[in-house]
Amino acid sequence: MRSLEDLEGSGAETVSSEELAIRGQTTAAQVRKDLSHFGSFGKRGLGYNVDELRHRLRHILGVDRVWKVALIGAGRIGSALFEYPAFESRGYECVAIIDSDPEKIGSRWSSLEIHAPDDLESLLGSLGVELVILAVPARVAQEMADRAVNAGIQGILNFAPIRLKVPVHVPVEDVNLVMQLEALSFAVTQRGPDL
Amino acid sequence: MRSLEDLEGSGAETVSSEELAIRGQTTAAQVRKDLSHFGSFGKRGLGYNVDELRHRLRHILGVDRVWKVALIGAGRIGSALFEYPAFESRGYECVAIIDSDPEKIGSRWSSLEIHAPDDLESLLGSLGVELVILAVPARVAQEMADRAVNAGIQGILNFAPIRLKVPVHVPVEDVNLVMQLEALSFAVTQRGPDL
Repeated sequence: MRSLEDLEGSGAETVSSEELAIRGQTTAAQVRKDLSHFGSFGKRGLGYNVDELRHRLRHILGVDRVWKVALIGAGRIGSALFEYPAFESRGYECVAIIDSDPEKIGSRWSSLEIHAPDDLESLLGSLGVELVILAVPARVAQEMADRAVNAGIQGILNFAPIRLKVPVHVPVEDVNLVMQLEALSFAVTQRGPDL
Repeated sequence: MRSLEDLEGSGAETVSSEELAIRGQTTAAQVRKDLSHFGSFGKRGLGYNVDELRHRLRHILGVDRVWKVALIGAGRIGSALFEYPAFESRGYECVAIIDSDPEKIGSRWSSLEIHAPDDLESLLGSLGVELVILAVPARVAQEMADRAVNAGIQGILNFAPIRLKVPVHVPVEDVNLVMQLEALSFAVTQRGPDL
């Protein structure tokens, strides 16, 4: 997707599987195979129309619409996320903020009031929240996830360092920064002695 | 790894591939196959010694030591990371902070002074920094990465939403929260109409 947005920015109208392969650090055959899963794209010898490909991929990914998001946990990570411009520009609209800190409850971030967890179910239900960003300490993460699921949310981006137990129809995407640092250490270690 | 730490906490001395498979949401055969890549572990019929397995895996992963880390970018994400207790407890010691904001330069986070980017090479070199957490805006990320690489760092955890160009011997781990939200949207969309 990022490659396609770069390409659109560059003014190119079509792109070949070879070009996409270079940008995606894969092979042209793999690009054609991956895209063929989603139906018929592109014309042999002519390549793919950049704009059409981008629109169809955005539709397949479910990112061609606005998603209503609630932020549960208004700490440092929550605050960094709330101010992250890319979320809104990509169609993720934060419509509710929840935190248990009495000093935060009732205050506002931009125009959004911070609510107590007591209101979680009614707030998320009445606003039609679809996705939750869970940025709370591990010890309360499962309880907050359970209550969000009961309120009818459809997916969770989880920053708490625990494996959430949720019904199979609620996908969870875990953000685990320690594991990413460990993956980096592993890659450095694998590299062997300094060149 | 997390499963093993849970097990150690539970006081269990050995663990079977079946138990590890359940915890890892995979199969016992896959667990045995994965572990066999790293040499000979465990005894047929007896399972794996939890403590030995954990130590050997930590060594393989390169996480049985302290890594010296520099934080480049002392904004909201940088500040959330700096205060994230899991980093230090897992062996990642922040030894330098760099930011270009004149109001931040010279101030301290805990006992660490925030330095100007001018000092980047000498600071990282003299402190023996091995890993960099890059939490700066996209427009300056490549320049900061180049300078960190010149200073001899070995790996980058990158929060900037660009694909860094670095020498092949410097692994980069990208943290892309928008892509994780999009993966979540995709999973929700794939699920089809509400049950």
